Amino acid sequence: MSPRPDLRGRLAAARAQREHAGLSRRVRACDVLPGGRRMVGGRVLTDFCGNDYLGLASHRDLVTALTRAAVAEGVGTGAAHLVSGHRGEHHALEEELAEWTGRERAVLFSTGVMANLGALQALLGAGAMPGREAALCVQDKLNHASLIDGAQLAGAALRRYPHGDAAAAARQLDAQPGLPALLATDGVFSMDGDIAPLAALASLCRERATLLYVDDAHGMGVLGPAGAGSVAAAGLGSKDVPVLMGTLGKALGCAGAFVAGDADIMDAIVQFARPYIYTTAMPAALAAATRAALRLVREDSEGRRERLAANVARFRAGATALGLPLMPSTTAIQPLLLGDAGSAVAAARLLEQAGFLVVAIRPPTVPPGGARLRITLSAAHSEARVDALLDALARIPLPAQAIAV
Amino acid sequence: MSPRPDLRGRLAAARAQREHAGLSRRVRACDVLPGGRRMVGGRVLTDFCGNDYLGLASHRDLVTALTRAAVAEGVGTGAAHLVSGHRGEHHALEEELAEWTGRERAVLFSTGVMANLGALQALLGAGAMPGREAALCVQDKLNHASLIDGAQLAGAALRRYPHGDAAAAARQLDAQPGLPALLATDGVFSMDGDIAPLAALASLCRERATLLYVDDAHGMGVLGPAGAGSVAAAGLGSKDVPVLMGTLGKALGCAGAFVAGDADIMDAIVQFARPYIYTTAMPAALAAATRAALRLVREDSEGRRERLAANVARFRAGATALGLPLMPSTTAIQPLLLGDAGSAVAAARLLEQAGFLVVAIRPPTVPPGGARLRITLSAAHSEARVDALLDALARIPLPAQAIAV
Ligand SMILES: Cc1ncc(COP(=O)(O)O)c(C=O)c1O
Ligand SMILES: Cc1ncc(COP(=O)(O)O)c(C=O)c1O
Repeated sequence: MSPRPDLRGRLAAARAQREHAGLSRRVRACDVLPGGRRMVGGRVLTDFCGNDYLGLASHRDLVTALTRAAVAEGVGTGAAHLVSGHRGEHHALEEELAEWTGRERAVLFSTGVMANLGALQALLGAGAMPGREAALCVQDKLNHASLIDGAQLAGAALRRYPHGDAAAAARQLDAQPGLPALLATDGVFSMDGDIAPLAALASLCRERATLLYVDDAHGMGVLGPAGAGSVAAAGLGSKDVPVLMGTLGKALGCAGAFVAGDADIMDAIVQFARPYIYTTAMPAALAAATRAALRLVREDSEGRRERLAANVARFRAGATALGLPLMPSTTAIQPLLLGDAGSAVAAARLLEQAGFLVVAIRPPTVPPGGARLRITLSAAHSEARVDALLDALARIPLPAQAIAV
Repeated sequence: MSPRPDLRGRLAAARAQREHAGLSRRVRACDVLPGGRRMVGGRVLTDFCGNDYLGLASHRDLVTALTRAAVAEGVGTGAAHLVSGHRGEHHALEEELAEWTGRERAVLFSTGVMANLGALQALLGAGAMPGREAALCVQDKLNHASLIDGAQLAGAALRRYPHGDAAAAARQLDAQPGLPALLATDGVFSMDGDIAPLAALASLCRERATLLYVDDAHGMGVLGPAGAGSVAAAGLGSKDVPVLMGTLGKALGCAGAFVAGDADIMDAIVQFARPYIYTTAMPAALAAATRAALRLVREDSEGRRERLAANVARFRAGATALGLPLMPSTTAIQPLLLGDAGSAVAAARLLEQAGFLVVAIRPPTVPPGGARLRITLSAAHSEARVDALLDALARIPLPAQAIAV
């Protein structure tokens, strides 16, 4: 008989531990109703937790572009970009994304997770000596999971600095001057909504021959001139932020992601990013829908960014008046920090009974004791719905500890 | 001045080395014309390199399902499955995939790469002691890049056995009896087309308390009863192969992937796979299109699997008669092993001039000296096109070394 420890047993123990701590997750279907409301467990809810910040996901132009391209080109591409999966729609979208962000070239990925994993694998790992640490990768403690995982995938030495602390980042770089280095940060932090100190990071990276990589999943489309993101909003260009990553499944209302930058860096990604090379190209119809979204985002003739900003201001004003535990965010992500997971889950349940879909975010997604309601605003929310959410929040018992934060 | 070695410089050197070895890759647009031909660089070509094995990507039913769902639900889901991105279409597809493959539960991913990275991260890594090797992961040398990367991401001890060598796999497991273990293999190998020794692997895994994971990206839809894949074709069930991964972007003609198995294993993936938890759910419209594809695949009322098998047999008979360097494959993947990269590229170029799109596959995708034309057959190819390809191959000078393989 084999004395081998059982993988299934270890998994069962890990699951039981999660369950016991009240941190298990469950998938449930949230359907879309006409008008954008959700149907969840037989109840009609307004979604205040998604990332469709501009309300574009259901826009007629996107649906029409998707449909047209699918009729012309089919659904799946059936092959990788480097085989026969790359279509004119992908090419055109890459060109438009590059132009929008003021970069020489953009490269498409099927998801933001793949973009981060692939780009970091390539940039940190290509040309590294086997058996040694590939490079130094310095990251904000609150970076997205896929940035952290990208460093692990690349075999890089990962150092994480306290959230938003540029001086600490500089010290971590200075402590390891012998390794080539990359500093990665979210532009807008996904669970906090605050913005990275981009100008400070750009300048310390420049002084330290360090490549700066900004994941602007939650800034792209929403912040800056023409919605070109948090980097553009900070007045920074491709000299300051040589690698810019953006997603297409949040403000742009579609799915997928891109990395943009100088042609030589982009070519390194094409040559060395295995999650780019060894995957089926995203459907051309999604590229077509994204092109339609990008036109709407750039022109913003309906004033969606302004409506979103107004909703954010309205929510913050109301929440402040109610003494709710707001966090220091100016973006569409407006979490209420409740502290313990049980309180966050209970609050989410009460909101659901009041007609609002807001999900409790618990560890390990956020640090221990950092459970929260991640409330997100959208241009699609009417003022009345924002007010109704505030009314519902006013009637929910929140832990005293939360109010004090 | 910082003495730090420059990441950009290292990338430039790595790119130059690739270029010098004739192994650089270039993206170019391959458009789809009515009737399924391709337009590439101004030339009309027949595609013999994609993975749309049943010719379903452009099927009316898929396009109709995609369009209907997009009109009803929009394009992007705007949130992760565990937030508000999971729709009824995802739920229904997961149920249907589980039923099709005879598993308790299936979990959707946006791509096969994410499925492999996520599932291996969760299964090998959850509950591991920090700072120690998470688990033993034994893999076939020719496994897909994302399986190899999944073991790296999980922090597992990776051992790769010679291609298809079950006895060597057993020895690698026996050499490390102290670690919990998982054995991962492609069902159908993506660049060779041959099938893993699944029955032998299942039995040695059973004897060694080792979880068997089969990536059936190229078997699903094509092999076995109702197209349920290479595992079903080998008469194996979920007791033999507890973790089954399949993709939706090849024979099913859409995009995405799934992992299927017992409910406890699937729940471990939902709880611990970061590329599942921290990503936007794939568009519901793609799930709807895949459901339409799955109906076509299961019924196969048009005899697509039979047509594909007939095309494979026809191609192999013709290629054998011509003395072409076929490999031992019975599947839709029928590579011609040419050896050096230059010959493979030259042959691909000549085929293109003759009207055929076949891509040269070079190292590092295949082992050094293993460059090849990866020819793939599809049910959508007419007999006349297969014959025309054979004619073109007959007229191409192939390296003597290749013929001898
Ligand atoms: C900061 C950040 N980066 C990357 C991603 C991943 O993008 P995607 O959902 O396209 O995989 C997300 C969210 O999902 C994110 O919040
Ligand atoms: C064996 C194998 N596994 C996984 C994948 C990745 O699947 P996807 O293209 O959906 O990312 C592929 C091909 O792309 C493959 O050939």
